[in-house]
Amino acid sequence: MSAVTQSATTLKLALVQMRMGADPAANLQRALELTRQALAGGARLVCLPELFRSRYFCQSEDAGNFALAEPVPGPTTEAFTALAAAHGATIVLSLFERRAAGLYHNTAAIIDGQAGVVGRYRKMHIPDDPRYYEKYYFTPGDLGFQAHDTAAGRLGVLVCWDQWYPEGARLTALAGAEILIYPTAIGWHPEEKAALGARQHAAWETIQRAHAIANGCFVVAINRTGFEPEPGGAGGIEFWGQSFVAAPDGHLLVKAAADEEGVLYAEIDRADIERQRQGWPFLRDRRIDAYGDITRRFRDE
Amino acid sequence: MSAVTQSATTLKLALVQMRMGADPAANLQRALELTRQALAGGARLVCLPELFRSRYFCQSEDAGNFALAEPVPGPTTEAFTALAAAHGATIVLSLFERRAAGLYHNTAAIIDGQAGVVGRYRKMHIPDDPRYYEKYYFTPGDLGFQAHDTAAGRLGVLVCWDQWYPEGARLTALAGAEILIYPTAIGWHPEEKAALGARQHAAWETIQRAHAIANGCFVVAINRTGFEPEPGGAGGIEFWGQSFVAAPDGHLLVKAAADEEGVLYAEIDRADIERQRQGWPFLRDRRIDAYGDITRRFRDE
Repeated sequence: MSAVTQSATTLKLALVQMRMGADPAANLQRALELTRQALAGGARLVCLPELFRSRYFCQSEDAGNFALAEPVPGPTTEAFTALAAAHGATIVLSLFERRAAGLYHNTAAIIDGQAGVVGRYRKMHIPDDPRYYEKYYFTPGDLGFQAHDTAAGRLGVLVCWDQWYPEGARLTALAGAEILIYPTAIGWHPEEKAALGARQHAAWETIQRAHAIANGCFVVAINRTGFEPEPGGAGGIEFWGQSFVAAPDGHLLVKAAADEEGVLYAEIDRADIERQRQGWPFLRDRRIDAYGDITRRFRDE
Repeated sequence: MSAVTQSATTLKLALVQMRMGADPAANLQRALELTRQALAGGARLVCLPELFRSRYFCQSEDAGNFALAEPVPGPTTEAFTALAAAHGATIVLSLFERRAAGLYHNTAAIIDGQAGVVGRYRKMHIPDDPRYYEKYYFTPGDLGFQAHDTAAGRLGVLVCWDQWYPEGARLTALAGAEILIYPTAIGWHPEEKAALGARQHAAWETIQRAHAIANGCFVVAINRTGFEPEPGGAGGIEFWGQSFVAAPDGHLLVKAAADEEGVLYAEIDRADIERQRQGWPFLRDRRIDAYGDITRRFRDE
C-alpha cells in the first residue's frame, strides 16, 4: 500500500507561488526546485504562475524582450517533462511562446506524466494597461477555450486577464473541464495600493470564485509575489500573491499569503462537482436559445 | 432649490426588503406603505422583492395558486402607477403575470413616473428544486434580456434564478443597462442551514458581485425576509434577507440585515460606471469571435 494512493476522484494538487528575479536561468531552477518539493509532498498536479521564467517584462515595451520567447515544446517544457514522467504527475506551465519569427503568444502547456505535452492554451484575452503592455508582445490566442484529459482529471487552462471573462470560464467548463487553472501575474501599482488595493484584490478573488459557482467546478489561481521594478521608471508592480483554490460552491479551500514564496497544497474531490451541480442545477436551465448576442460587441443597434 | 435636486448622474435608490404574510391584500398595502416611505426618504428608484404580493407559493404545486396571477398592466401595477406619477419616480415591481388562460410568467414591470409601465421582463431562467417548484407555475420568458430607459437611468431587470447566470447579466449590460436589478426570493431550508447556510448565502452574494465586476455596472438584489411554512409540510423556507447594492468594482455599498423588514437606501453615481470601465477595460477585449459555443448545451461533440 502506497502512502500516495488516492481514490479515483480525490486529488492532491500544488500551487507554486513564486518571487521572480532578474535572471531567467535562476527562476527556472527555482521553479524546478519548488516543483520537486511539491511532488515530494505528494502533489499529482503542480501549477506554476504566469511567465515564471522571467520578471514580468510587459511593464515596458522593449523589443529586446522577444529574446525571452521560446518554442513550445522547447527548453522549458523539456526541463519539466522529465520531472512529470518520473512522478507520473501533471504539470501546468506558463510560457512566452515563439511560434514563428514575429509571432508570439502567452501560452500554457499541459504536461501529463510520460505522455509529455498533451495540450496547450494560448491566452485569448490580452490586456493593455499601464505596466501591463501585453498587446505589444502577445498575439491573441487562436486555439479557443479547451479542456484536456490528464491523469489529474480533465483540466481547463486559462491565463490571467482571461479570469475577468465569464465567457472563457463557461466555455472551458462546457468543454468538460473539472478544474479551471489560471496562471497569473497581477499586482498593485504601489501608488494606487492605499486607495484601491483592497478592492482590486477582492474583485479578482470574487470573480474567480464566481466562475467556480456558475460552473460548479474547481478554480485554481496561481499568482506571483514580490515587487518588480519598472524598467527605466520610478514605479513597478507589487504582485499580490494570495494564490488560492476555490471549491465548486465558491468557498476557498486554501489561500496563500500575500508576500510568501512557496508551495500551497490542496486536497480536492472531483466528485464534489457532480454533487454541487445536482444541488444547484445551473447547467440544466441555461437559455441557449437566448444567448446568441453574446457574440456581439455591444447590443446598440 | 429643492432638497432632492441631484446631478445628472447621481441617484438615490431604495430597496424594500419585506416579510410576507398569508394575506395578499395586506402584503400589497405593506408594499405600498414601504414604497411611500422610500419616496418620502428621497428615493428616485424603488425596487421590490420577487412576487411580494403573496407568500412564496412555489413551495408546493397547487393549481389553486394560479388564482394569484394577474395581468400586467393590472391591479398591482395600477396601485403603484399613481405613486410613481406623483413623485416622478421609477419603481420596479415583481408580479405573477397571467398572460392568457393557462399561460403564466414570473414578470417584472418597470414603472417610470407619469409614463406608467415602460417595460417588462419575463424571468428567463426558471428553477425547479425542492420547495422552489417554479417550473410548474411559470413559462420561461420570451422577451430576452433587455434594458429600459427611465428617469433613474437605463435599467436592466432580471429575476432571482437569473442571478446564477453570467450570460443574463452580460447580455443585459451589453444592452446598455447601468443597473442590474434582481428581485429575489431566496432562503434556507432550515434543516440545511447549519451545514450549508453560510456557503449558500456567500455564493449568492459573490456571483452577483461578480456580475458587477465583469460588466462594470451596479447590481441591486432585493430579497424577502422571514420564515414561510411549507403548505402541508413540516418544513419551509427561511428567507435570508441581506439585500444589497454592489458598485461597478464589486464592493458592497449597502447591505440589509438578515431578518429585518424595511427600506435600504443607497446613493450611487452612474458616472462610476465609465470610470470603472476605463480603469478595467474588460468590454474592450471580449473575444466575440470565439464565444459562439455559448449557445450550445455542452461542448461534447
